[in-house]
Amino acid sequence: MKKIAISIGDLNGIGLEIALKSHEKIKKLVKPIYCINEYMLNQTSNLLNRKIPKDFEIYPTAGKFEIKPGKNDFQAGLYSFNSFIDAINLAKKNSVDGICTLPINKESWAITNIKYHGHTEVLRDVFKKHAIMMLGCSEMFVSLFTEHIPIKDISKNIQKDKLVSFFIDFYNAVKADKIGVLALNPHAGDGGILGDEEIKEINPAIKEANKILQKEVFKGPFVPDTYFVNPYQYSIAMYHDQGLIPLKAKYFDKSINVSLNLPILRTSVDHGTAFDIAYQNKAKIESYIEAIKYHIGEEK
Amino acid sequence: MKKIAISIGDLNGIGLEIALKSHEKIKKLVKPIYCINEYMLNQTSNLLNRKIPKDFEIYPTAGKFEIKPGKNDFQAGLYSFNSFIDAINLAKKNSVDGICTLPINKESWAITNIKYHGHTEVLRDVFKKHAIMMLGCSEMFVSLFTEHIPIKDISKNIQKDKLVSFFIDFYNAVKADKIGVLALNPHAGDGGILGDEEIKEINPAIKEANKILQKEVFKGPFVPDTYFVNPYQYSIAMYHDQGLIPLKAKYFDKSINVSLNLPILRTSVDHGTAFDIAYQNKAKIESYIEAIKYHIGEEK
Repeated sequence: MKKIAISIGDLNGIGLEIALKSHEKIKKLVKPIYCINEYMLNQTSNLLNRKIPKDFEIYPTAGKFEIKPGKNDFQAGLYSFNSFIDAINLAKKNSVDGICTLPINKESWAITNIKYHGHTEVLRDVFKKHAIMMLGCSEMFVSLFTEHIPIKDISKNIQKDKLVSFFIDFYNAVKADKIGVLALNPHAGDGGILGDEEIKEINPAIKEANKILQKEVFKGPFVPDTYFVNPYQYSIAMYHDQGLIPLKAKYFDKSINVSLNLPILRTSVDHGTAFDIAYQNKAKIESYIEAIKYHIGEEK
Repeated sequence: MKKIAISIGDLNGIGLEIALKSHEKIKKLVKPIYCINEYMLNQTSNLLNRKIPKDFEIYPTAGKFEIKPGKNDFQAGLYSFNSFIDAINLAKKNSVDGICTLPINKESWAITNIKYHGHTEVLRDVFKKHAIMMLGCSEMFVSLFTEHIPIKDISKNIQKDKLVSFFIDFYNAVKADKIGVLALNPHAGDGGILGDEEIKEINPAIKEANKILQKEVFKGPFVPDTYFVNPYQYSIAMYHDQGLIPLKAKYFDKSINVSLNLPILRTSVDHGTAFDIAYQNKAKIESYIEAIKYHIGEEK
């Protein structure tokens, strides 16, 4: 059974509730190791009025502070960062087979002066590799070719060579027989009338990547507005909202976030700390269960 | 009961099959007048092996040619154009209360040297007004602030004054209490880090439009990737795929196209001529039924 390190996220949010609620299910799939110390764990257990399961194995991330449900707090921010770093280190020394992250709070990281904006940035810095962001669930995974950039800057980033290299990295990470590539423009540019990135960059990149792989893995570029009616299991979106709008519209609750193209596999829930419902026993666990399951399906 | 003129679209496609199949349902909702002459109607009836209902009232659009199922043809292109013009004229002289269009084939219009690319362009030219494109179904209607332009040109079109005028026109057409306005950038720009059109243009436009209307009709700008999990019934998208990707992902079969802000109300199916299944009795009628229903719900 695979060992998975769980970084527990922001303790002022819903992470620990999800971990405790899901433990019985999770332990049948993997051997989880929770990066939290006993002192902090006991606090969450009291706040939630929920017993700590006997087989709840922990890795004692250092730190001691008072949990303030639903509050931005520098101590909670720092602790969530340290828990994540512990999980990464467990994976780096092969004590675990992968990591799964519960949500951190970006504002709490900011007030704690952590120089990163989120998990993926940390992973890129630690491993000095371009982690590929993929989101989804078993019905539909979508990776993002461009991510957190303004709409006006997308076009200049759609470059053939970068696309080819992204395509090959993505293929090596997921090894899917068929991968759908989205066009950039409405109607896939309509033969160049509504934009020519399809003709100049995306189509040539698809051809070159297929030539490198010596098989027709990459399909498209597909007309974006109809593609998600019946998408391939694995797709590449040209920009953030092109991939995430349909994913969330269709599979909001079960969607997960996966970091690919790194020495370790990291999955994550695809939701935030939900401060508004922290410690109210209202948090949903679907996304977390899917995030754990991905580690089992993933044998690469 | 409202009278609705039906332009029958490209006769080499699925339009007439849909009209004949749906007549029994449609006639309980409105009084349809089909813009097709008897000679052409008899041909479709023979090809489909489907009788013409006795109460199938026609307006005899002139023209005579051989139907070639699934083929691009200049005669079919021209006839579909003339049927549409007849429907518009019936509406202009108040012989009908509105029009509903079955799909034309854009390539057939092109080879026929019709100077328009589609229905909406004709309407804008005939009425010299900016028709607002709205697509959707009762669960979710989305209007498009920018339409058929490349992604790289969207940003420069997001201008406060144009937005305000669009917002007011849209409100006057749908008279909804609440209208959701989408942000342009991922995470709604994240306070300006991922684009500033929200701060400089969209947000001020929302405020000004609400001030003009003296009520808080326009809400947002909303983060695009999560908005469509639970959208308002009426929304304004900043670009084509932002609105149409989630609409088609969720409601592909029943979605319709509505032209607003014109002296006449025009609805349309939101699909094409489907040449691949023409005259095979396989066409779906949901979108057409919805397009007819919109005329009844619409009392403005």
